[in-house]
Amino acid sequence: MKLISVVRVCASLLALIGGPASAKVFSPTTFKLANGLEVVVIEDHLAPVVTQMVWYRTGAADEDAGHSGIAHFLEHLMFKGTPTVGPGEFSKIVARNGGEDNAFTFYDYTAYFQTIAADRLDLIMKLEADRMQNLSLSDDQVYPERDVIVEERRQRIDSSPEARLVEAMRYSLLTNSPYGRPAIGWEQEMEALTTADAVAWYKKWYTPSNATLIVVGDVKPDDVKALADKYYGPIPARPVPERLRPQIAPLTGAERRITLRDANIHQPAFVRMYVAPNYSAKTRNQALALEVFDEIFGTGTTSRLYQTLAVKMKVATGASSSYDDTALDPIAYDISANPAPGKDIAEVEKAVDLVIQTLLKGGVTDSEVSDAKTRLQAQAILARDSLDGPAHSIGEALSTGQTIDDVENWPDNIGAVTTDEVNAAMRAVLGPDGASVTGWLLPSQGTKAPMDAVAAANSAPVASGPIR
Amino acid sequence: MKLISVVRVCASLLALIGGPASAKVFSPTTFKLANGLEVVVIEDHLAPVVTQMVWYRTGAADEDAGHSGIAHFLEHLMFKGTPTVGPGEFSKIVARNGGEDNAFTFYDYTAYFQTIAADRLDLIMKLEADRMQNLSLSDDQVYPERDVIVEERRQRIDSSPEARLVEAMRYSLLTNSPYGRPAIGWEQEMEALTTADAVAWYKKWYTPSNATLIVVGDVKPDDVKALADKYYGPIPARPVPERLRPQIAPLTGAERRITLRDANIHQPAFVRMYVAPNYSAKTRNQALALEVFDEIFGTGTTSRLYQTLAVKMKVATGASSSYDDTALDPIAYDISANPAPGKDIAEVEKAVDLVIQTLLKGGVTDSEVSDAKTRLQAQAILARDSLDGPAHSIGEALSTGQTIDDVENWPDNIGAVTTDEVNAAMRAVLGPDGASVTGWLLPSQGTKAPMDAVAAANSAPVASGPIR
Repeated sequence: MKLISVVRVCASLLALIGGPASAKVFSPTTFKLANGLEVVVIEDHLAPVVTQMVWYRTGAADEDAGHSGIAHFLEHLMFKGTPTVGPGEFSKIVARNGGEDNAFTFYDYTAYFQTIAADRLDLIMKLEADRMQNLSLSDDQVYPERDVIVEERRQRIDSSPEARLVEAMRYSLLTNSPYGRPAIGWEQEMEALTTADAVAWYKKWYTPSNATLIVVGDVKPDDVKALADKYYGPIPARPVPERLRPQIAPLTGAERRITLRDANIHQPAFVRMYVAPNYSAKTRNQALALEVFDEIFGTGTTSRLYQTLAVKMKVATGASSSYDDTALDPIAYDISANPAPGKDIAEVEKAVDLVIQTLLKGGVTDSEVSDAKTRLQAQAILARDSLDGPAHSIGEALSTGQTIDDVENWPDNIGAVTTDEVNAAMRAVLGPDGASVTGWLLPSQGTKAPMDAVAAANSAPVASGPIR
Repeated sequence: MKLISVVRVCASLLALIGGPASAKVFSPTTFKLANGLEVVVIEDHLAPVVTQMVWYRTGAADEDAGHSGIAHFLEHLMFKGTPTVGPGEFSKIVARNGGEDNAFTFYDYTAYFQTIAADRLDLIMKLEADRMQNLSLSDDQVYPERDVIVEERRQRIDSSPEARLVEAMRYSLLTNSPYGRPAIGWEQEMEALTTADAVAWYKKWYTPSNATLIVVGDVKPDDVKALADKYYGPIPARPVPERLRPQIAPLTGAERRITLRDANIHQPAFVRMYVAPNYSAKTRNQALALEVFDEIFGTGTTSRLYQTLAVKMKVATGASSSYDDTALDPIAYDISANPAPGKDIAEVEKAVDLVIQTLLKGGVTDSEVSDAKTRLQAQAILARDSLDGPAHSIGEALSTGQTIDDVENWPDNIGAVTTDEVNAAMRAVLGPDGASVTGWLLPSQGTKAPMDAVAAANSAPVASGPIR
């Protein structure tokens, strides 16, 4: 919906939680309705408010080739009404009752949420259950909204040099994977989406057995169950197709570089992306070890990257890494840094490679691993202190092949990671057998970046996050 | 089938024909059977031989995402027999009768051909019509052949640094287009192809209404018609799906580079690819103009590229361009050059860019255009002098959306191209609004290329051609 940067929301959330969070933190109550709807309730009685989130296990990576953008388009269209709730009425009703609502789409999921006074849970469950089964789409609602998503793409990607660089890098890195496509879609394909496409997508994926309902706040599980039975229970189940996707074909052994110059760039940026394992049963140990590595390597001002580039060598104003492994398929591990005033981007790249080569040669130390694990586990505790944080962590995990147990056991699993595992996982991703793409974001040749103005700025965020 | 390099066959063929050839050259007789099979006969009575080609209008670009390789796999499996012709017997029968046969697959088509004594046309038509409708596939034939195509990929691509560079460049350049995938497939997907996939592909695309039969040689059209009626006529027609493909989303405004270093590289190569229009109704004029441009820019030793790099500056031993526009969708325009002994690849790139900048600024001249058109038209006349040349030109044209008239009128259309059109087409592709990828193929760092050994070598061919 709105152009809120969920990139940042998620980045801070992930920084907090550092990956799948622990149920020893959230202590959820879970149950399943007869139609397959999975329900998760987390009690939080600090304030008389409640957040409802419904997560559908479908997203941009499930789109057929040639139909990119349909997942996000349908997310927009879910606000276009049902026979009993007029177009745009959903959000107005929530707002009139003092609440707020929104939605977001990413590669593996599409989610809808409202936060409202706890005694209005009945209302928002009724509304959300209604549009789970009764969405009503007509051309006069659909086509103007298509203009909106196309314009959204222009604003978010086409008019942002950084986003265009990231789009090109991800496409090149995540070869053959739908994660290499922009989650919002390719413009020409978005422009060709039809009402029939939207209806087909809705019928294919939007059914209780393909959804998770998460309720967090000042509620009791029994009351939530009664309301869920009342509103979601009568929705008939439909079979859901398997999520079959083309798998990544990583192009190793080649050095790939993309340089984007634009007159609007005032802060040059260095970006490197590597193919990395996602958090799945098959590669869970590597993913856990990389989470620990990422903490050591590029999280915060004590990290190897920041200490070397910004503190010791002073070639960069900021340097960090980002690893969001909560996904169904292999993903990108991102590194970014911004040159310090007067420093060349090539110097920054050299410094990043120096840090990496030092790590590949010497590995991380036992004490770094121990400290990182402690920080990650502590952050899991902190993650309790919001309504949407827990809902987001659990929803994301359950939408990407994890179980509540996976979430519950995360702190213990992090605790079990060894230094050898961290070094092996790091070497597999950053070492000579890995696949990477290097990006430079630079002012147009001839223009000179006003370096002083950005001297104090932090490194630009790299990750492409969910879109609203 | 065999690992014959059709790249070279096609490159020389295209060099000869320079694009769609002229019917004023081939003078074909055409007719259509009731089941939709299109038949083209070209008489050539120089020798008592005949070539039969059957072109199916399907290829690697029609594959569903996740199923790459199936078009080429089925091509191999077409030799696995029918109820009346045992596995491998097809080629043995042709050989016993003094003929030879083969097949090839590319993005837009799959073709089968035999050349044999003219009095054996009856035999090869009977055989080819048989496998058009009666292909019989069993697991014990299919799975060993899958190992063959996987091994073929390893030999053709994975063990060739140049092929790996080209694969990575095409993927990056032809963003979102199936032409960006390797026509042979991604290894992991080839390894997962099943008998059921092959049967489904055969049933989907192999039907008379989706094929062109081309017979060239010492034959009379009436005799060919009688035989075609006898053997192909009884095959029932089946509906053929539309060829819907994701369209290219060119990433402009970014400089993309791929460098591949390998210990086995003894001859460094510079490769540049640009997104270019295909020869279709929509972009025919641009394609025709680019064909003329390509002749001026990078075809032969009188070309701008060769003259500047190899003759005047002496930075390269060879330099050429390649533009094969006979395709259903936008394609890559390729430039390649090999550094001369002692010259750095960066110097070669600089020289290529100098030639391009000079052209963008000053354009081509009227006399260059006039000479190029004359050469192209003369080459069309030469194209008559073989059996498979005409068959290939017509088959390729008819499989990529062209008509016989398009082929017939090609020399006239080339003749009508103006200098302004050449310059406009060139600027659209090579100018600042174009999309390109630059590739460097280099020896591993530390190894030194034995420059003397390659001093006399020509530039490496770049284009990825059909696979057998």
